[in-house]
This record gives sequence, structure tokens and C-alpha cells, in this order.
Amino acid sequence: MTHSVAILGASGYTGAELVRLIATHPGLDVRALSADRKAGMEMSEVFPHLRHLALPTLRKIEDLSFDEIDICFCALPHATSQAVISQLPRNVKVVDLSADFRLRDPAAYETWYGKPHSAPELQKEAVYGLTEFYRDEIRDARLVAGTGCNAATGLFSLIPLVSTGAIDLDDIIIDMKCGVSGAGRSLKENLLHAELSEGWYAYGVGGKHRHLGEFDQEFSKAAGRTVEVQFTPHLVPGNRGILATTYVRGEARSVHEALKAAYADEPFLEVLPFGAVPQTKHVRGSNFVHIGVVEERAAGRATIYTVLDNLTKGSSGQAIQNANLMLGQNETTGLMLAPLYP
Amino acid sequence: MTHSVAILGASGYTGAELVRLIATHPGLDVRALSADRKAGMEMSEVFPHLRHLALPTLRKIEDLSFDEIDICFCALPHATSQAVISQLPRNVKVVDLSADFRLRDPAAYETWYGKPHSAPELQKEAVYGLTEFYRDEIRDARLVAGTGCNAATGLFSLIPLVSTGAIDLDDIIIDMKCGVSGAGRSLKENLLHAELSEGWYAYGVGGKHRHLGEFDQEFSKAAGRTVEVQFTPHLVPGNRGILATTYVRGEARSVHEALKAAYADEPFLEVLPFGAVPQTKHVRGSNFVHIGVVEERAAGRATIYTVLDNLTKGSSGQAIQNANLMLGQNETTGLMLAPLYP
Amino acid sequence: MTHSVAILGASGYTGAELVRLIATHPGLDVRALSADRKAGMEMSEVFPHLRHLALPTLRKIEDLSFDEIDICFCALPHATSQAVISQLPRNVKVVDLSADFRLRDPAAYETWYGKPHSAPELQKEAVYGLTEFYRDEIRDARLVAGTGCNAATGLFSLIPLVSTGAIDLDDIIIDMKCGVSGAGRSLKENLLHAELSEGWYAYGVGGKHRHLGEFDQEFSKAAGRTVEVQFTPHLVPGNRGILATTYVRGEARSVHEALKAAYADEPFLEVLPFGAVPQTKHVRGSNFVHIGVVEERAAGRATIYTVLDNLTKGSSGQAIQNANLMLGQNETTGLMLAPLYP
Amino acid sequence: MTHSVAILGASGYTGAELVRLIATHPGLDVRALSADRKAGMEMSEVFPHLRHLALPTLRKIEDLSFDEIDICFCALPHATSQAVISQLPRNVKVVDLSADFRLRDPAAYETWYGKPHSAPELQKEAVYGLTEFYRDEIRDARLVAGTGCNAATGLFSLIPLVSTGAIDLDDIIIDMKCGVSGAGRSLKENLLHAELSEGWYAYGVGGKHRHLGEFDQEFSKAAGRTVEVQFTPHLVPGNRGILATTYVRGEARSVHEALKAAYADEPFLEVLPFGAVPQTKHVRGSNFVHIGVVEERAAGRATIYTVLDNLTKGSSGQAIQNANLMLGQNETTGLMLAPLYP
Repeated sequence: MTHSVAILGASGYTGAELVRLIATHPGLDVRALSADRKAGMEMSEVFPHLRHLALPTLRKIEDLSFDEIDICFCALPHATSQAVISQLPRNVKVVDLSADFRLRDPAAYETWYGKPHSAPELQKEAVYGLTEFYRDEIRDARLVAGTGCNAATGLFSLIPLVSTGAIDLDDIIIDMKCGVSGAGRSLKENLLHAELSEGWYAYGVGGKHRHLGEFDQEFSKAAGRTVEVQFTPHLVPGNRGILATTYVRGEARSVHEALKAAYADEPFLEVLPFGAVPQTKHVRGSNFVHIGVVEERAAGRATIYTVLDNLTKGSSGQAIQNANLMLGQNETTGLMLAPLYP
Repeated sequence: MTHSVAILGASGYTGAELVRLIATHPGLDVRALSADRKAGMEMSEVFPHLRHLALPTLRKIEDLSFDEIDICFCALPHATSQAVISQLPRNVKVVDLSADFRLRDPAAYETWYGKPHSAPELQKEAVYGLTEFYRDEIRDARLVAGTGCNAATGLFSLIPLVSTGAIDLDDIIIDMKCGVSGAGRSLKENLLHAELSEGWYAYGVGGKHRHLGEFDQEFSKAAGRTVEVQFTPHLVPGNRGILATTYVRGEARSVHEALKAAYADEPFLEVLPFGAVPQTKHVRGSNFVHIGVVEERAAGRATIYTVLDNLTKGSSGQAIQNANLMLGQNETTGLMLAPLYP
Repeated sequence: MTHSVAILGASGYTGAELVRLIATHPGLDVRALSADRKAGMEMSEVFPHLRHLALPTLRKIEDLSFDEIDICFCALPHATSQAVISQLPRNVKVVDLSADFRLRDPAAYETWYGKPHSAPELQKEAVYGLTEFYRDEIRDARLVAGTGCNAATGLFSLIPLVSTGAIDLDDIIIDMKCGVSGAGRSLKENLLHAELSEGWYAYGVGGKHRHLGEFDQEFSKAAGRTVEVQFTPHLVPGNRGILATTYVRGEARSVHEALKAAYADEPFLEVLPFGAVPQTKHVRGSNFVHIGVVEERAAGRATIYTVLDNLTKGSSGQAIQNANLMLGQNETTGLMLAPLYP
Repeated sequence: MTHSVAILGASGYTGAELVRLIATHPGLDVRALSADRKAGMEMSEVFPHLRHLALPTLRKIEDLSFDEIDICFCALPHATSQAVISQLPRNVKVVDLSADFRLRDPAAYETWYGKPHSAPELQKEAVYGLTEFYRDEIRDARLVAGTGCNAATGLFSLIPLVSTGAIDLDDIIIDMKCGVSGAGRSLKENLLHAELSEGWYAYGVGGKHRHLGEFDQEFSKAAGRTVEVQFTPHLVPGNRGILATTYVRGEARSVHEALKAAYADEPFLEVLPFGAVPQTKHVRGSNFVHIGVVEERAAGRATIYTVLDNLTKGSSGQAIQNANLMLGQNETTGLMLAPLYP
């Protein structure tokens, strides 16, 4: 059976990625698309790579009808999302790709996002969208909050270790290398080709990156105590992909075993043989995650390498994986596309 | 019903692309893989991005059994292909991705490839794999010769114009900009990242590029007279994609109309609105072709812009499109994947 | 002896390139820098790669004193340049990098730039900055108009052929492949890394690119009759460099000889051996131009390949070359930096 | 006064970079070039970007005369260097860019390079080429061993901290992001553009990278006790540049002060304002090093960000800086070229 989909904020990269994936998804059909500033345009004008698809014209949200919509993907900017979702009919299931409902604690939200949450009751209701760890709640959820793409990468690397105590919880460093599409299609000087290509550097340094809010929430929950990791993202001259190099104190073999065991039945999470390292390009355009564990020369130290595509498993692919569960479909439906290489 | 597939020369980019596409193709199943120098290895060692798939171990060709193989894709080097295909059981259908069977005339083959053909009888039997123009022959063929990726790009730009005489047949210039994956996974200094990135230049200049053999054969056939175009490929710092800028003498509107009419019912060929130009990235990773026509300021001159992905529509996607026909399947099966953007 | 330099519009790429070149130029010293929106900032904040240099703070133009300035480089937007330069003291020599003074004919200016020129008397006075062809006029000029970067590339390819009639003047096609820095540091969606990298396409198609105004002016002057070439620029995923592939009717050997003869004594123009083709990366970051000539298979047809760095020889390097002449210095002073490779 | 230079192994990237820098160096003149496999070729055939220079023909080493050579740069492969240098006349000063003479301890050499050193007496004599810390020894040296490019980046980040005890010596993690030119011009599959661009990953993991030998030697020397850091290099899709993200336990302000104090008078080492982070592209093509220090949210933790160009300050620029000292020239002569941006 086919379900009707609305995508709000379809003119950004996560919106385009949702359409790309739904294009070959047998159970989903795009019935409504919104894009405020581009209302009235066809999706093929905004994203010519989608011109072979028959898609609805882009509208303002207020001009959309949700009567026959089963599920709505919100790819709107932070803050806007809260306002819009509180106005949606309760019978429409919602997957939010913004940061608005990732943090359960209103205080934490205010700390990381600089203002109080405008829809605290929805915040309570929302389920965190890290599928592999919230599967059951997601199945029954009406509102699922997609994770940050960096957050997902770090969480996949560590949750099974944090929860089992396989590592020292007070000495975790996550060094991330991120492609530029995670910054979206926004007009910022540092995102220009001439500025970014052939160069790389750190950003959001000094413990200021907002995804730390998600790390603190999920790691502390997993550990049953407060856990605050150290995290630095770096921008590298590529479009898709995140590599998290995670430095931990723990026995490398046990770390590898714990991850293998935790992900043994996961369709999208692949733990590489001990000592092997993954490459971002090996998951590009796919919903897969590759994880490697390496032993360091200093006793009791291990390093975990995790890669995923920020637009797929880190965002839109994850959203569809969650939608599949919310709609009672097979979780992997439409998501088994192989990575694009080279 | 599912058909059994063998891929010979699976360790190259076209081999990997075949596996990528077949991974989500409902009617094809990979049963045998060969790679001479890498025999004994798993495909996931040669191409880790395919590790989520259950694939047969790489073998030497002589160690493969073709008893239950319905169709065989040959992604072998030129010349090797001739020798191998002549040894294959006659009941196995073959799609050859090499250059060995593209030219029907033994003399032309010798001219462009520098030595006589070793399997002239197969050469006679082979059907040229430009699906949109050889559909019926391909349906009944036992051996189909995949086109050159540059050749396909130029042929889609011009055949309907050459056959209808919408343009001057003696003044055609094709300036092509090609991504590097067309050169394969070979260890050549000019293919190194440090050598290629941030730079671009022409190659195969002076009418020496072998794909001219295909142009001469197909354009002359379409025109019913000898047609020899001028063609220069350029290497640009990208992995996938070909852009053909084709300069012709003819009325731009008629050129646009002729192409629109010719491709009106084609599932993969999209003619853009008059005056619009395509981008290689808008078809990346897909089987689609985008074609634009522009009027020049000089009276009676038009320019045609055509893009496709050299590894998909230019090679492996085209091969599967032909295989679908040879196996009596719907021509588009497994090939409707949307382009990867950004 | 050292001359004092002012750079107006120093916050763009051509401004930064001027500073880079002057940094090791023994006869020039930067005494004043302007940047309207960034007035009050240090150059090292706008361009951290220049932080090792002691440079004046960025000011608004009206806050600069020109009393001790010998020469002023204007790297301002089109139209702004006219207004600013007419206000500069007559004793300050000026090299303008904008398009404002490239066209001598007011009517032509209005045609290509869409409005009448606001300083027609200056327009008359201005000398076209293509050094190799206007050397004597530039030596005595007070105002030199830098050429367009695409224009320079095409002019170097053709002027000696157009003036000697070595080619058919009515059948010239220039297919150009341009790096993105030519578009400047402006915030446009198509200049984003995620949009541009891994893709390429034509722009300014259909004889609409403004540099055609320069081609028409200079080629007609060289030929002593009206010459209108066909020209299409393409954007490729690289930062610096322009490759012009120029298709002409003429005897290839004569074309090669004519270019070799014309440029025999030029310090920056290198004509490659007959049949060899240049690469953009071989001149990156330098003031050199490499030119190659190839014979086509069709009798009487030749192709000329010309490369230069749009920010150096195509803009700021050319500007300093002209300033050297205007200041009575050796023309090559400070410009012999070798290309950066890889 | 001008000194005569020989470059052995001139066909690699460090050889080309030496020639690029010497091209505008007033005190050095290239008199001899060797390249074994390319003997008999002109440098302009191997590196067309250098065609404007008058350079000696490439020869085999045995065909070179060292009679009038003042200094010899050896850019030969590891192991080869030992054999060649021991045969050079004692009156020729030598700067070796290989790894052969970086480690003073023969046992350490054998550990990291897998075989005994063939010229231990030269090994004793060699001075480690980290100019800023070995200036006096280098001035008087006959043989200087250029540092590893990764080693230099890490050493600049830490030596002043290790020697002053500003940080915990037992908890240092260096996460490095390296451009591909550091791997040289060698034909390896992973260095192909199609393999590397659009992807990134770790290599030499698990404490196996040979530059650890240099870290152990220099940090232990600076600390007066054994110091073994943790180090992981990553390959990113860029040609030039290294970024070292170094995680330490120490008070961030003190770390910043210690580095500022140590490098206050250094012409090439720039310590950024507290909290600012550097970019590899801001030093590309130059001999400069930019260093930033950031305070982490966890008390007592700081992160140091250091960038340099692996081919310039990390290799050939450093070599010329050392040669300037060995020849009694000003240390910065010929090395003040500004970075190329964008």
C-alpha cells in the first residue's frame, strides 16, 4: 500500500534527498511540497536533477491541504519547525529533520539554542530519531525528531560502549571530518567553492557545537550518569560524508566485540574486521554506516572510526527509515540503494 | 522472474557500476564474477562500498561455470574481450562493454585499433548498443556491443539532426568535457589526484580519439553518406559526467524541435526548454540524459549541450538497459534511480 | 626606487591577488587599501593568508589620502569604477580592473552593459590593457583598462592570426573552460562548493557574454574589418585557470608559425611545440600563458589551445605588468613567480 | 653572491617545489638535476609548469659533476639516499629530504624502517632539520636531514609545551588531516583522483606511521624523558596542506602564552589570537605556519591547531631555509612568497 507524503521545506538539500529516495520507494508517494520563498516554482526549477519526476508544484505551507497526507517530513529551519508542527493536524504523522525536538529537556534546549522552546508539550511527545536505539518508541510515535548528522555519527560510535562501560566515560574525544552539504544550501562566504576547495579547518570549536547537546543527552542516558564528551568538527573539501575519529580509553578488542555484538542484526550498520578503517566514500549516497576499531600503541587505548553520509543516514535516509516504522512498513524499504562509487 | 548474471572484469569501475545497479534490480541476480589479477578476493575487498551485498567470490574466467548463466556482461579490456567472448557458450547472451564490437567494418576496426579483429564473425553478429536507435535489433540480439561513453553523448546530440538534414553535415564540431572515471581504474600519472584536481586540458586531440570510429560509422549510416565530425575531448577535474558542446550550422528552433520530436517517448532522454543548458551534475549516478539547444548570435548557427553519466548511461546503465530488452524485461527496470545531488 | 600603491576594492579576489604579487615586488609598496563594507577591518581579517604582511587598515575611499600615491589599482565593481576614477586626482596613475573602460565606443558600452557610460571623456583617454599589443600606449597612459580574463585568453589565441589573415575571419569558435574565481567572492548559489564541485556546464550562452564586446572591438581593429566570433564559456570545478579551445579554418602549421613569430620575444607568452596542448594547472598562480596548436583531420582546420590564470595574467598580474610600464620599471619586475604545482 | 645547487631526484614533487622556490631565489642557481628513470629528459617535459626556466637536462647521478656544486638537495627515495650521500664529495653540503637521516639512534631507525642503516657514521653527523629548534647546529652542518612533513607539523605544535611542561606529557593525541601530495607522485590506486576526491579516511593507524619515530625522538629530547604521543594521520581530498589537531591536558591560556613566547621572533611561525583557528589554505604554497589554541569545555583541556604546506614548510621550503643558514645567507631569502589564495 502506498502512503501519501508531504515535504515541508523541500528546496533545501535534505528536501531534495527525501525526494531522491522516495522516487524509488514503493510505499511512499509525494503529494505536497512546500518552499516559502520559492512557492509557485516547480521542483525541477529548483533541483533540475529531479526533472524526470512528476512532482507537485512548490507551495507556501498555508496553501497546502493535509487532508490526505499520511506523513509529513519537516525540513524547515530551526525554530520555524516548532511553530509549523504545532499547527499541523494531529492525525498527520511527522518526521522533523530540524533540531527543534532533539533535546527532551527544555532547559538544555534553551542552553544550546539560545531561547526557550515555543512548543514544550510537543517536545515532551517527540521521540529521538536514532532508529537503532529507539525503534519501538518510533513505531508508535506521532512525532519523531531526526538526529543531527554529526550526532548520529558519534552516537553510533559510542552508545554500546558507554552503556556497557567498555570505555572510560570521562576521557572521550571525537574528532570529526565533515562534508559541506551538512551546512545546507545557504549563501555563506565560507561555503563558496573558491573558499572551501583545496582547504580544511576546524569550526564550532571549544565545545560550542550544538550537537553536543545531543551527545550529552544520549550518552548520559545510556550511561545512567552524566557524560560529557569532547567534540571538534572539521570542514573538509567534499560534499557528502562524515568521518568520526573517536579516541577512547578501553581495550580495543573488547570495544570491537561490543560494537559487533550490538550491531550484529542491524541492516545498515557494518562493523569492519578488527583493525580495518572505513572511508566516507564507501557509504556515499547510501543509508549504510561503516565502523572500524583500531588498537593504539599505548596500552588501554583504542580508536573508533565511523563513517556515514550526512544527507542519507545522517538525515533524510534516517527520516525515511523512521517513517517506514511509523507506517508499519519494512524498515529497510526503499533504502537499500548501493553507494555511488567513484 | 530473475535472470542469472555473470560479470567478467568486475574489478573495474564499469564492473562496480553494474553491481551497484543490479543491487536494486528486481530481475537480475549476480551469480558469477571474474577478475583475473584479483581472483580469490571478495568483491568487498576490491570495492568496500559493496560490502553489504552477498556476492560470489572473484574468480578467473576459466574457473567460472556458465551453465546457469542467462546473460554475461563483459567489462574486460579491449582485445581481451574478443578472445573471451568467442569462447563463451552460444546460449549465453552477452553485453560487451569494451570497444571490441562497436565497429561493424573490419577495416575501420583495424584503422582505429591498430590491428585486425580476431573474431570477425562475431563482429558481424554484434548489434550496436545505442538502445534508443537499435531497440528492435537489441531485443533479438545474442551479442550487444556497448557504445563508447563519449560516442553515446555525441550520438544523442546529433543523430536525429543528421538523419533529417536539419544541419550542415560538413561543419560539425563536438567539444567534450569528460570526468576522469572514463579512464578507468588504471595507474597512470595523469590520473593522480595531485595531477588532475584544480586543472583541465584537452587529450586525444587532432582527430585521433578512437570514438571517432563510432561517430563516423553511425553518423554516416544515419545520413546515408559519409559524415566526419570534428571532435575534441577535454579532461576536467570531476569523477563522473560528460558534457558535449556541439557546434552546428542550422536553425536553432528546428534543431530543438527535431530533438524534441525524436525523443518525445524516450524514458531516459530529456530535451530541456529552448535556450536552457544542462549540467553534468544533474544526471550524476543516473541513466538520464539532458539535452539543451541554444541559438547563437550569428544567423543559422546553433549549439547543442548534452550531458550524461559516463559510467551509467554511458556504460553500465546502458548495458543493463540493453540486457532488459534482451531478456524480455521492461527496458527501464532497475534504472529509474534519481541522480545523486549534491 | 619604490612607488606608492593604493588598491581600491581590496576585499575581493583580484585585490588579494594584487597584494600577493606586490608582497614580493621590489618596486611597489602598498600604502592605502579600500573596502567599503569592510572599512575599519584589517586585511588579515578579510584574507588571513596575508597576515604576515604589514598592511594599512581597510578604509572607505573617501577616507583615503592620495597625496603620496603614485599609482592606484581599482578592483571595484563595474559602474562604481567610473564614478570613483573620475574623482581621483589627475596626477595619480590608474589601472582599472573593472570592465568600465575596456570598450572605447560609448555605443558598444551601452549595448553590452545596458546603460550609458557616465565618464565618456575618461573612456576616450583609457588605454586597453592587453600589454603585449598596447605596450607603447600603456607606457604613456594615465589610465589603463584591464582586460576581461576570458577576453585576454581569446585575444592571445587569435590576434596575430586575425591581423595576418592566417585564418578565415568568419568562422571562429571559442569554447572556454573557466575556473570559478573569475566570478569573484560573491554570494551566489551556483558558486557554492556543494553546487559546483563534481559538475560542469555552460553559462552566458547564445552570444550574451559581455567579453564579446572586447572580442568584437579588438578583433575588428586587428583585422581592419568587422569580425564577430562565436564564444561560449563553461564553468568547471576548479578555482583558477582558463582554457580556451579555439576552432579555426586555416593551415595548422601556418597558424603555429604566426603565433610563434608574434610571441617570440614575449617574456610571458609561451608557444608550445606544434601538436602539444597546454594545461591550466601548468600556469596556475603565475603570469605565464601557454599556447598550443593542433592540426585537425579535416583539411584546412586547426585548433588553438590557450591557458592562463584568470587572477594573475587574466587580471592582477596583467595589472602589475602594466603598472611596471607606466612607472618606467622593467615590465617583468615581480612577475616571474613560477606556477604552483601540484 | 650566488651558490650552485644540485638537486638529486628532481622528478618528484619535492624536486619540483625546490625548483619553483629557487626560481625566484636571488642567491641560488640550479646547476645540476638528476632523475634516474627520466635521465635525458628536460625538466619541462617532466614538469611543464617550469618550461619558462633555463634548467640543466636531467641526468643519472653518476653522470653529474659535483666539482662546482656548493650544496646538494637530495629528494631521493628512502634508503637510496643513504647510498648516494655516502658517495658525495665531502666538500659538498647536503640537505636530505628523505627519511634516512632523521633518526639519530640506529636502533630506532631499524625499528621504524625495518632494516639496519647503511651509513651509521653519516647518521651520527646529520643534524635534524627543524630550523627553529636546530638553527645553530644547522649553520655549521655539512649534512642536514629534512623533517617529515607530518612530523614538522606536530613538533611546531608541541615542543615549547613539552619542554616547559605546560601540558601532561602522557596524554597527547595528534589527529592530522593531510593533503595527498605528501604521498608523492607515485602510482598507487588510492592516489587516483577517482578514488580520493569526494572521500576521506585514516591511514597508518594504530601507531604505525613512521613519523612517530621523529615524534618520539624530539619530544623525549625536549622533555628530558620518554614521551610517546598518539598520532593518526587522515588523507583528505586536497593536494597541499596539513592540519594537526592536537588534544592536550593543560591550561589553554598558558599553552597559548608558551607558544606565543617561543615563536615571538620567528619569521615563519604565526600564533593566532587566542581562540582563533587556522586553515590549511591560508598557508598554501608558502613557508608559513599558522597556529591556534582553543580552550575546551572540560577544565584543563586545550586543543592546538597547526597548519603548514607539506611541500613548502614541510619539505622543500624548509630545505631552502636550512640551505640559507648553511650558506651564510639570510634565513628568509627567497622564502617570503605569499600564499596562493584562492
